[in-house]
Amino acid sequence: MNPKPRTFVHEITVRFQEVDRAGIAFFGRIFEYCHVAWEELMNHIGLRDVFGAEGWGMPLVHAEADFSQPLRLSERIAVTIHVGGCGEKSITFEFTLHGVEEGDKRAVARHVHAFVELATLTPRSFPESLRHALIREGLIAIDD
Amino acid sequence: MNPKPRTFVHEITVRFQEVDRAGIAFFGRIFEYCHVAWEELMNHIGLRDVFGAEGWGMPLVHAEADFSQPLRLSERIAVTIHVGGCGEKSITFEFTLHGVEEGDKRAVARHVHAFVELATLTPRSFPESLRHALIREGLIAIDD
Amino acid sequence: MNPKPRTFVHEITVRFQEVDRAGIAFFGRIFEYCHVAWEELMNHIGLRDVFGAEGWGMPLVHAEADFSQPLRLSERIAVTIHVGGCGEKSITFEFTLHGVEEGDKRAVARHVHAFVELATLTPRSFPESLRHALIREGLIAIDD
Amino acid sequence: MNPKPRTFVHEITVRFQEVDRAGIAFFGRIFEYCHVAWEELMNHIGLRDVFGAEGWGMPLVHAEADFSQPLRLSERIAVTIHVGGCGEKSITFEFTLHGVEEGDKRAVARHVHAFVELATLTPRSFPESLRHALIREGLIAIDD
Repeated sequence: MNPKPRTFVHEITVRFQEVDRAGIAFFGRIFEYCHVAWEELMNHIGLRDVFGAEGWGMPLVHAEADFSQPLRLSERIAVTIHVGGCGEKSITFEFTLHGVEEGDKRAVARHVHAFVELATLTPRSFPESLRHALIREGLIAIDD
Repeated sequence: MNPKPRTFVHEITVRFQEVDRAGIAFFGRIFEYCHVAWEELMNHIGLRDVFGAEGWGMPLVHAEADFSQPLRLSERIAVTIHVGGCGEKSITFEFTLHGVEEGDKRAVARHVHAFVELATLTPRSFPESLRHALIREGLIAIDD
Repeated sequence: MNPKPRTFVHEITVRFQEVDRAGIAFFGRIFEYCHVAWEELMNHIGLRDVFGAEGWGMPLVHAEADFSQPLRLSERIAVTIHVGGCGEKSITFEFTLHGVEEGDKRAVARHVHAFVELATLTPRSFPESLRHALIREGLIAIDD
Repeated sequence: MNPKPRTFVHEITVRFQEVDRAGIAFFGRIFEYCHVAWEELMNHIGLRDVFGAEGWGMPLVHAEADFSQPLRLSERIAVTIHVGGCGEKSITFEFTLHGVEEGDKRAVARHVHAFVELATLTPRSFPESLRHALIREGLIAIDD
């Protein structure tokens, strides 16, 4: 039996230029916070320089979010990432945003990335280097 | 028989600070372009000053998008809005983004707004002023 | 005697995601509005594709702005550009932002660009293609 | 003799959505990085909730920056703040941005804030609570 997959957490702060007239983060910012956490994950697992070197990319093909509670100015928000699923030619990352102080859930999001050959932008299979990096971090199980 | 509901179109230009290293719009920008078009629609149907005056709001509770083709630097993009559905306490706007020159589809998005009383932030029914404004513009049918 | 140099005007709208809690544009947005108007100017005078083709660039080396009156949500703002000065290896663009409706001045800004060879990023002289394009539009005089 | 005034340092990371086609931070982002560091300073010295409580504000009336070297994707940047000057009705903050790894200077910036009564938006004198907080942190000397 595989152990429960791990998650990756990155904290952000809601900044002045990110809130609207009501003092809460504009909804588009939630997608940015998720992308920032995802960048941190990619750097953390050593993928940052792999894309170019191996000639593949993983453009976003779908993004969605549910907003349950507002994110307020100057708040610390914990963005938790887990791998929602691995397809043959795609991967889904799921994000949960909590207030660090209160611990309450504010939003969830889901990003689907497709794998492409950078040279031709045509679909390609799940890159082995990414699979191994995610297994090494415990974000996916060996048989995912 | 009701006529086919109309749509609302607003064009935007992809700006330098909105594109990434590949010269294409960052995915979070697509949500911003949709929101800009929606702001124009709200202004166009005279709703801009109604929110405060009538004491209700319509926060976004869900947003999603599918990205099929990139939006490139300096391109004109037509954002077409139609009402995807009216619930008792919510409304769904659907967005389609086309390249103005080539006419090809780049992305689709869907925003769900819930109606709330501004004073209490509790759910409330579909505001009649909004329903009438949308009927007047032909964006929803009389029996929607 | 040379005629008074002409100006270039581009209008923008202050958007929801660009205003802060007070309903006024975040100061960093004023620099973006200037850059958007400048992009429009570059496209208008046919410079858009020249940079790469001729192998030079014009990175911004200095930017400044004075903010006198706020820019409010949904307002139309006219950004007027004129050439503030031509150096041997640089050019200064000056921007004035007015409210379209009231006609009052909101802010002024000044951007200094240095000319560089793209290949080496070393300084280079004022590109003749840019000088001719600016003269053709009347933005600089023949002996500037 | 007063000791040399201290500085306040806050580090940021250059994010994907903040870089342009050349992989370097859009110039407007440098102003945002400075503002983020300034927000952190205001929170650090306990000023965050003072503005509203005491009925004054400090809108930005001037901002400028010199850009010497690019800020690249994923780089850590140290933003150092010191008080550049205290007027009767204004304060100037100066910012220096260094690459954390190389330690080299990338940009400097200067923000001038004017003090106003929030109720009337009319100019007012330097708030004592701000002066005391800045002295306490060593950011200004007692006789500034």
